[in-house]
Amino acid sequence: MTTITIPDDSPFGLSNLPYGVFSTPGTAPRVGVRAGDSVVDLAAALGDEVFARPSLNAFLAQGRARWDEVRARVADLVTGEIPDHAVHPAAAVTMHLPIEVADYVDFYASEQHASNLGRILRPDSEPLLPNWKHLPVGYHGRAGTVVASGTDIVRPCGQRKAPDESAPTFGPTRRLDIEAELGFIVGTGSALGDPVRTADFAEHVFGAVLVNDWSARDIQGWEYQPLGPHLGKSFATSTSAWVVPLQALQAARIPGPEQDPAVLPYLRETEQWGLDIALEVSWNGQVVSRPPYRDMYWSPAQMLAHLTANGAACRTGDLYASGTISGPQREQRGAFIEVTWGGQQPLEVAGQQRTFLEDGDEVAITASAPAVDGGRIGFGEVTGRIVPPRDTGV
Amino acid sequence: MTTITIPDDSPFGLSNLPYGVFSTPGTAPRVGVRAGDSVVDLAAALGDEVFARPSLNAFLAQGRARWDEVRARVADLVTGEIPDHAVHPAAAVTMHLPIEVADYVDFYASEQHASNLGRILRPDSEPLLPNWKHLPVGYHGRAGTVVASGTDIVRPCGQRKAPDESAPTFGPTRRLDIEAELGFIVGTGSALGDPVRTADFAEHVFGAVLVNDWSARDIQGWEYQPLGPHLGKSFATSTSAWVVPLQALQAARIPGPEQDPAVLPYLRETEQWGLDIALEVSWNGQVVSRPPYRDMYWSPAQMLAHLTANGAACRTGDLYASGTISGPQREQRGAFIEVTWGGQQPLEVAGQQRTFLEDGDEVAITASAPAVDGGRIGFGEVTGRIVPPRDTGV
Repeated sequence: MTTITIPDDSPFGLSNLPYGVFSTPGTAPRVGVRAGDSVVDLAAALGDEVFARPSLNAFLAQGRARWDEVRARVADLVTGEIPDHAVHPAAAVTMHLPIEVADYVDFYASEQHASNLGRILRPDSEPLLPNWKHLPVGYHGRAGTVVASGTDIVRPCGQRKAPDESAPTFGPTRRLDIEAELGFIVGTGSALGDPVRTADFAEHVFGAVLVNDWSARDIQGWEYQPLGPHLGKSFATSTSAWVVPLQALQAARIPGPEQDPAVLPYLRETEQWGLDIALEVSWNGQVVSRPPYRDMYWSPAQMLAHLTANGAACRTGDLYASGTISGPQREQRGAFIEVTWGGQQPLEVAGQQRTFLEDGDEVAITASAPAVDGGRIGFGEVTGRIVPPRDTGV
Repeated sequence: MTTITIPDDSPFGLSNLPYGVFSTPGTAPRVGVRAGDSVVDLAAALGDEVFARPSLNAFLAQGRARWDEVRARVADLVTGEIPDHAVHPAAAVTMHLPIEVADYVDFYASEQHASNLGRILRPDSEPLLPNWKHLPVGYHGRAGTVVASGTDIVRPCGQRKAPDESAPTFGPTRRLDIEAELGFIVGTGSALGDPVRTADFAEHVFGAVLVNDWSARDIQGWEYQPLGPHLGKSFATSTSAWVVPLQALQAARIPGPEQDPAVLPYLRETEQWGLDIALEVSWNGQVVSRPPYRDMYWSPAQMLAHLTANGAACRTGDLYASGTISGPQREQRGAFIEVTWGGQQPLEVAGQQRTFLEDGDEVAITASAPAVDGGRIGFGEVTGRIVPPRDTGV
């Protein structure tokens, strides 16, 4: 038997205990919990085959009561004795995509982000469209290209046409960008025809991850009318490896911003699900932005209520993301198109003037939030490095 | 042993042999092939467990060579003797959704449909947006709400705001519509970063189904800027039960329409994948439209090449649909918003003036195509009946 010592300042202390999927040279991908610098093999520690699977989905499908019970048992394990073979050093394991993604929806819930994009893309109009404050605008993304943190991002090719060009051309994107977001993972689904109330958010949603919704702005700009973003986004979306359970976010819950005009009844909330989560975006190792999730206009409970208001079912493994998180300051913007104002105001990164991503660039997004014990919990990171296209397709 | 007699005029003759998933009171859902008025239980007839599953996906993942081999063996079975327990009367089985849908993408490939919607929704602008003839416009839909033909369609609630209203209201849609489409099912996927060439279409795509992409026009109209349709579509998408293999469509292949301007190289085709498929839309039993697939501007091989041009992976079970199929005549339009020109030109259905769908209405879409034996093959049907919301959510 062994014991786990958690450093006092660890972002993965007892008040966090996030879930992920790991493997070792001798262990196929399976569910683990992070505690300090260790990963607990839940199938080995608890003797339950639901954890001996390559995704969290089977466990997620068991529902809130079971999630709470397992969390309590894991806390006991981590503060007591664990069989040696059930503990691995975090540095010695390989992390995988934690869930098998069912549907992926991306929202647009930051007023600053939506306003900035409106000003950049439609400078002669009102920055926010008339529907924006009435409903959380969102759209479906590609579930099959959600990838684990650390997966290389192949620079996408596609059609793009600058305003001064007479016809589109095809080739590697010239405006490859990030979107720093928070993603929510549905544990238990809902039946077709039955909306999920805002009050039932925590019955359905298991936890949260960081998301980098890589975006090719030139491809997106040419394609997106009238049916929305498609190829400009569908090439890859990265998520962090560790899923932070909602219970770990209790101390981060805050009131959301005042919503004016008042929202329709199905979007009203009886509980507060604003979240005081601080993100940090690094570009080749240099911190370039600190997006504040606390300013988001729409809460995750409102997003889920909206997503299902038409009777659409949700399923175990559904991932819905907040959309880019941007605060009011330049250094709080969660996408480079905003930080550089459409590429017109370059940013100094490691001594170079930069606008969009070049091959070889690496972006890492991290986040932390207040913990119930007075410290802070961490989300780990979502990282990705840009590699050239294998074939430009022509 | 038994033999199957196929009526001469059957839409499910030897040149068709479509695949589906069926069950009987004594048989759990599994793969069957339709032959005349019979369904062949493939697991029982061929002794292969890949067919004893509740979706076609495991078989689809085996690839083109295997699909061709199984088709030849099934033709032998159907023209020879089959064990009694491997044959069921089609009227005695229950059909299910044939695939486990991975990602669902909906295109917008009919020039008539895109032009009609442009004229109805943006009467003061050019009907087609500048990108339309350069790329097959499409977007992701909700995979989790793709349902089997015959599933009741719960009228969705949502936000809608008429131009003369000052604020949106929430309630059951008042403009519930259909979209008659053809859907293509990916059998073998592609790796992240590797585009699929138009020439490789038949290596990846297994076959086709009919799709009814139910649409709530008022919800869609209010929500869709700037990120595209979402709740107005995500409540339900129905597919036909029988997947017609590409081999059965050989005699339906025709040149597509001339594409002017010339398409970019990645969209050029070496083979013709225009398809001479004739659809028929019935509203409460009355045929109201006959959309011609042969007029579609973009071919399914171009759609797949575009879908993956940015390196997006495709997966077994991906479904991509053509978008509404509309011909140049009013009685060839595949959506009621077009047939009734935004609700301004009602249609007489069973003696009543009708615009959009009412509770209790039933819509059936069928289709046929030339067969290699000189007759015609059928797609069966995709049907759905509108039922009231269980709860209007307020």
